[in-house]
Parts: sequence; structure tokens; C-alpha cells
Amino acid sequence: MTDLTRRGLFAGGAAAVGALAAGAAGATPASASAAPLTPGDGGRAVEPFHGPHQAGIATDPQAHAAFVAFDLLKDTGREAVVRMLRLLTDDVRRLAAGHPALADTEPELAAVPARLTVTFGFGPGLFRRAGLASPVEPLPPFKRIDRLEERWSGGDLLLQICADDPLTVAHALRMTVKDARSFARVRWVQRGFRRGLLTQPRGVTQRNVMGQVDGTVNPRPGTPEFDRAVWITGGPLGGGTTLVLRRIRAEMETWDAADRTAKEFTVGRTLATGAPLTGRLETDEPDFTRLSPAGFPVIAEYAHVRRARVDGATIFRRVYNYDDGLSPGGEPDTGLLFASFQADVERQFLPIQRSLAEADLLNEWTTPTGSAVFAVPPGCSPGGYVGETLLA
Amino acid sequence: MTDLTRRGLFAGGAAAVGALAAGAAGATPASASAAPLTPGDGGRAVEPFHGPHQAGIATDPQAHAAFVAFDLLKDTGREAVVRMLRLLTDDVRRLAAGHPALADTEPELAAVPARLTVTFGFGPGLFRRAGLASPVEPLPPFKRIDRLEERWSGGDLLLQICADDPLTVAHALRMTVKDARSFARVRWVQRGFRRGLLTQPRGVTQRNVMGQVDGTVNPRPGTPEFDRAVWITGGPLGGGTTLVLRRIRAEMETWDAADRTAKEFTVGRTLATGAPLTGRLETDEPDFTRLSPAGFPVIAEYAHVRRARVDGATIFRRVYNYDDGLSPGGEPDTGLLFASFQADVERQFLPIQRSLAEADLLNEWTTPTGSAVFAVPPGCSPGGYVGETLLA
Ligand code: HEM
Ligand code: HEM
Repeated sequence: MTDLTRRGLFAGGAAAVGALAAGAAGATPASASAAPLTPGDGGRAVEPFHGPHQAGIATDPQAHAAFVAFDLLKDTGREAVVRMLRLLTDDVRRLAAGHPALADTEPELAAVPARLTVTFGFGPGLFRRAGLASPVEPLPPFKRIDRLEERWSGGDLLLQICADDPLTVAHALRMTVKDARSFARVRWVQRGFRRGLLTQPRGVTQRNVMGQVDGTVNPRPGTPEFDRAVWITGGPLGGGTTLVLRRIRAEMETWDAADRTAKEFTVGRTLATGAPLTGRLETDEPDFTRLSPAGFPVIAEYAHVRRARVDGATIFRRVYNYDDGLSPGGEPDTGLLFASFQADVERQFLPIQRSLAEADLLNEWTTPTGSAVFAVPPGCSPGGYVGETLLA
Repeated sequence: MTDLTRRGLFAGGAAAVGALAAGAAGATPASASAAPLTPGDGGRAVEPFHGPHQAGIATDPQAHAAFVAFDLLKDTGREAVVRMLRLLTDDVRRLAAGHPALADTEPELAAVPARLTVTFGFGPGLFRRAGLASPVEPLPPFKRIDRLEERWSGGDLLLQICADDPLTVAHALRMTVKDARSFARVRWVQRGFRRGLLTQPRGVTQRNVMGQVDGTVNPRPGTPEFDRAVWITGGPLGGGTTLVLRRIRAEMETWDAADRTAKEFTVGRTLATGAPLTGRLETDEPDFTRLSPAGFPVIAEYAHVRRARVDGATIFRRVYNYDDGLSPGGEPDTGLLFASFQADVERQFLPIQRSLAEADLLNEWTTPTGSAVFAVPPGCSPGGYVGETLLA
């Protein structure tokens, strides 16, 4: 779907990913070979680790994710933070290429990189520990909607681990957590999933656990709009970005009790195709001025897509579903791991979040239960480590 | 890999699964078309629901599973049990074909069946409630090894939900749990995963979270050996089987501290290829009589594969990994959802489990924390429901 996907190479080989990365049905990719996809090939596909930006942001979303946040131990000072980041960078560099980590205890599990990416984020606590002013802070409270729990919030260091295979994710999680252990304690882990390459045709927008087409209006990696929205320019974070991770529970009990009209009214798009209520195709521009015969806006004032569109504020959503517990009565703890990347939290994320917190029909059916903000440093070179532009 | 896989059809179409089901690299499947696999196709693949046996047993294991156990409500009598089973059978019949359940609240999510199977198991409590003698009972305690927790054990009704897409599993779980709700309460849910069609070449044995090649010696669906080991013949359970589900934690901290020689000694097979310590290839027969130069058996007396081989006792292992929590110190709750199918628990599973509980080097690194036993009724016909041979 994106140029970045087409850049994917097989571990230990030179073959292009071919059909794997061949984009939407009907699209003829410029650079991918036409070799048919053999089942199993996807296990060998790798995403490049080095570069101006970290992987796992513009990367076509993999099917599985684990977000793990750490708190630095009391005696982890600046120098130790650097040691930790060198160690973790080395782990990730190897694992992403399909090679075992240096002290890998299950080296054979590393042989299936399955497009593994591990993206580092630094919380306010890491900057303070390193004696630096933090470029990020926790979001202000949104009292109307937030029901935040400590166990899903905050953190000094984040690793966003994504791959097309959950065993690959489990192994990368295990190795990095083990190597971080002398420096940091695990604060929380959140596991997410999306439809994968096998089950979802490329270029078709995903549905989320609520059944909605989710991800229609989103800057496309490789476009100037994406670059402007996501990458920080200049300074030690140049080439980096910021990540806001919100754990948002979907209130499936009441959502399921709503009828389709109400559900579509809430979002401003249809369930069947994701088209705006004023259009026919998913890609049609919503017409916010259109009135119904009775004189009301067809896309309601408080519809999610209207409230989420804030002049001059663009974010890149790279969202996963989660589905964790189930009460005896059958009520699920399910929803979104809403991961939003943007160059500037204050100027891009917050205006949208404020607008939604103030009035969004969807709030009736969604509850933020976790919140964390991280600065995402730029990528590094083969000899470097993630964070060196800040800490070296 | 199996005839059953090749039977797979696309939802709403007649095309054979083709490359999807084309078996191990190099194998030329008899009946599959040679059409290359387009990414996304795997979402439309369906497994037949009707037949003499339930799906999800001989079915080539899908990548994702949720095992959900229910306790019947106090006032759910025999008649209500039948109503519940009719309702759930109807849900599963539709969902497995890629159609929404009757009261589906997210019908669009049903359009990606991704080889969905939902397998019903009946615990002792369900039989008693229906006024029938139970053909299954909980396993006897294995005091040496068991550290069982109530929250992972027992249950009156089990649904084993498997698909190649986790969103499909989540949706089927949601729909069945909702429809079971007037009759039963959720007792536990356990979620598992394996490498999938995309990331694991067919015919290559999986590795588990401990890094071992796991599944080498296992009856192959479609063979007389499999049929003999798995299917009950005659009586109301004829065409059915039994399921033992053991949640077994892998003690990764100490396992990772062991060296490769110790790990291989423990199992009796190599980590690199899964070959027996007396052989070269994974498929070589272990030679249990071979002695080392020092005069000790090359495959130790207490090696897992030696202790697990009990004359006349064959089980079919259809195992998933799980990876759930992570302590602040980074210790994972990970291991196997060890699902074993056999015609007769007493004569097949128990001798092996007793032998392992008594002496198995692997016990040092594994801890059973959950245990449940279910009778698995035969499959049903288009007009019928699962369990009718017992309850009608
Ligand atoms: C569980 C919570 C949420 C759900 C289920 C949800 C769902 C959706 C859906 C279905 C759409 C329309 C299709 C699309 O363009 O992707 C949409 C659009 C959007 N959402 Fe959300 N959303 C949630 C939370 C949020 C949050 C927390 C933010 C930001 C703070 C956000 C920002 C946006 C934006 C920017 C758009 C595009 C609006 C446009 O058309 O310009 N959403 N969301
Ligand atoms: C976490 C727990 C366990 C792990 C990690 C494990 C791992 C393995 C491994 C690596 C093998 C060798 C490769 C193969 O043939 O699949 C094996 C074989 C086997 N295991 Fe286990 N196993 C576990 C628990 C059990 C249990 C609870 C049983 C039955 C009660 C069992 C029964 C068997 C059998 C029957 C074989 C084949 C032996 C043969 O005839 O060669 N395993 N297991």
C-alpha cells in the first residue's frame, strides 16, 4: 500500500516481498516482483531498522502489537539510560533482521521476523532522569470522559512491538524486557491486533471491534501531508515524532443495543461501507453543510467525524484493537489501543482531543481507561542507538 | 497438509483454497488449485461446519484460539440446555460460513470467516443437569506437578473458537457469549496463538514459546491412526471425542537460565531441528536403546519424549501458546494451552499424564495451572444441533 511496504525485504535474501506487498487488489506496485506468495513467506519478511525515522510508524501496520511501558529503577541515571538504550537497540537491530539477540535464549524463534518493528518512546521521566527538559507531558485530564487507571497509564520508556506473528511479538517482548530488567521495571503491557496480510486485502480499510470502518481519513505514509503531520523537523528530535497512546474501552453492551441508524448517526459514516452519510463511497468527502429535508445537518453537529476534524490539526492514527477480559456476565473488556503519532501533541493532538472530549456522540460508547505520552526519537544508523541525538 | 484442509472453500464462492492449502513446500497437493495466494484471500476461507465430526479437531490448526468455559445458571434445566445448544449451533453455522449470526450486532465483522471453527465440549455439570451420566470427569490430582487455579479450571460447557484472524475470534466469542448469557455464566476465557499460514510454511512443525519444535510425533488427520486415536465409535458420542485442556505455565526464568545441552537432554530432541538426540532429522525414530560412550542412555530415562511414549496410548495434541501477563520484574505468564483430543481419557490421556507426572525432566520448567475435561459430541447435520445425539 505504501512505498515503505515495498521496501520490505526477506531476511537473509534479496527477493522482493512480491505479492505480500503488492498493494490493493488491482493495484500494480511499481517495484514489487510479481512472484506469487507462498504461505510462510510472510514470516521471512523484514522491515528495515535503520534510517532517519524509527520503523513502526510509517510501516504498514502489522497484525499484532504489544505496547510495553517501563519505569526506570531508582538508580538508573543518565549513563545507565544510555547503556540500556544501546543494549535494546542492539537487540532490536538483530531481531528485526531475523537474527537472534546477543544473549538470545530461544534463538530459533528469531528466525521468523514477520516484519518485526520495535519503536522506542521516551516518557517525561526518562528525560528528567537524564537531566533534560522533557518535550512531552501527560495529557491534561478530560474529566468528562476519562476514567483513567494507573495500570494503563504513564511510563518512562515505551516499546511498541509490532509483527505479523504473535509468537514473534512474544519473543521480542521477552528478550527486550529481560535486557531492560537491570535498568527498569515493567509498568504495563497492552496487547493489540488488527486484521493481517493474510485475511485483509491490502488497501481495504480495517474494521475495528465496534464493527466500524476505521482509518479512512488518515495521512498516507510517503505523502508530504504525512511527513508534515508526523515528523519533527530540526533539533535533537528532528526525524522523530510523538506518540499518544490512549486505551479506550468500547462499551459493547450499550453499543450493541443501539440500532444501526443511531450508530451511523454517531460517527457520521455508514457501517456498511464507511461512506459519509452525505456520500456513496468511503472515499467521498463528507459534506458538512448538507441538510436533511427537516432542516437538520445530515452529519450531526456532534458526530465523531465532524468533531474530530479541527482546522490545521492533523494526526496519524495507527490503531490496534484489544480484547482482554470477560466478566462472568459476558461483558468484554475490549476496545482500541488508540496510537496517534504527530509532530506536536499540543498543536495537533490536543485540539482534536479537546473537541471530542467536549462533545462527541461517540463518547457515550467509549471510555478512555489509559493514557500515556512519549517522545519518539529519530531512527539511528548501523553504529548508533535510538536516543543518541538526545543523550550523546 | 491434510485432506481436510484441502476441503476448505471460500465463503460465497467455489474456488478451491489453492496456494493457501497447498501443503508443505515441495508437496504437490492432489486437489488444490495452483492459483497463487492473494493477500486477503485467507479471510474468505471457510471450514465446513457440518459432518460426522465437529470442526476444529482434524482441522489444520488456525493461528488464533479462544477457549471459553461456561457454568450453567441454576435454573438452566435439560430443556434450556437444548435451547441454548440450538441457538449456539445456529450462530456457529452462520459465522463459520461467513454470514452474520441471527442477532448479529456487528454483521460486517462476520464477512471474514478466516477458517473459523467453534468446537463444543460438554463438562460433567452439563450431563448432570440434563439428567445423564457424565462420560467425563475432572482429571485426578497430580500432586507432584499441579498448581491448579479455579479460575482456569472446570466448566460445564466449552467453546473452542479458532480462526486465522483474531478479530474473527473476538467477534465469534462476543456473539456466542451473548447468546449463551440467558443460560450460562462465563467461567474463564483463555486465548492462544500459533504461527499462522502467512508466517509458517505448511508442513513445517511449529515452535512453542519455549523455542522447541512441538508437534512432531502426533497422529496425522486423515490417517487410520488418527481416526482410531481420536474418534469415539458407537453410542451417542459416536463420531465425537474428548478434550483435555491443561493450562501449563512455562517457567521461562529458569528455562532461559538452562543451557542448550540441558534443554535438549530434558526433552530428548535437539532445539535446532527437533531431531531425536539419537538421530539427524526431525522425522527420525528415536532410538531409546542407544547408549553414550559412558554407558548412559542418549535419550535419558526421564526425557519428556521417552516418558510421553506409553504403549497403546495415543493422543492428538492440538496445542496453542499463550502469553498473558508480565510481572513488574518482567516474569511472564506464558506457556501452553495444551489441548489433547482422544477417544478415551482414561485409556489414552491418563497413562501418559501419569507417566509424565511421575517423572519427566520437563516438569522442572512447566507448571499446570488449569485443567478441564470435556466430552466433545459428534458433528451435526444442516437441520440439527451439536449435542442432539445426547439430548434429543
Ligand atoms: C474508541 C474510540 C474511537 C473510535 C471507535 C473511533 C472511530 C472512528 C471512526 C469509525 C472514524 C471514521 C473513519 C475514519 O476516518 O477513520 C474516525 C475518524 C477519526 N477519528 Fe476516531 N475513533 C475513536 C477515538 C478517536 C480519538 C481519541 C481521536 C483523537 C483524539 C480520534 C480522531 C479521529 C480523527 C482525526 C478522524 C478523522 C476525521 C476526519 O474525517 O477528518 N478518534 N474515528
Ligand atoms: C508445557 C508443557 C509441554 C511442553 C513444552 C511439551 C513439549 C514437547 C516437545 C518439545 C515434544 C517433542 C516433539 C513432539 O513430538 O512434539 C513433545 C512430545 C510429546 N509430548 Fe509434550 N510437552 C508438554 C506437555 C505435555 C503433556 C501434558 C502431555 C500429555 C499429557 C504431552 C505429551 C506428549 C507426547 C505424547 C509427545 C510425543 C512423544 C513421542 O511419542 O515421541 N506433553 N512435547
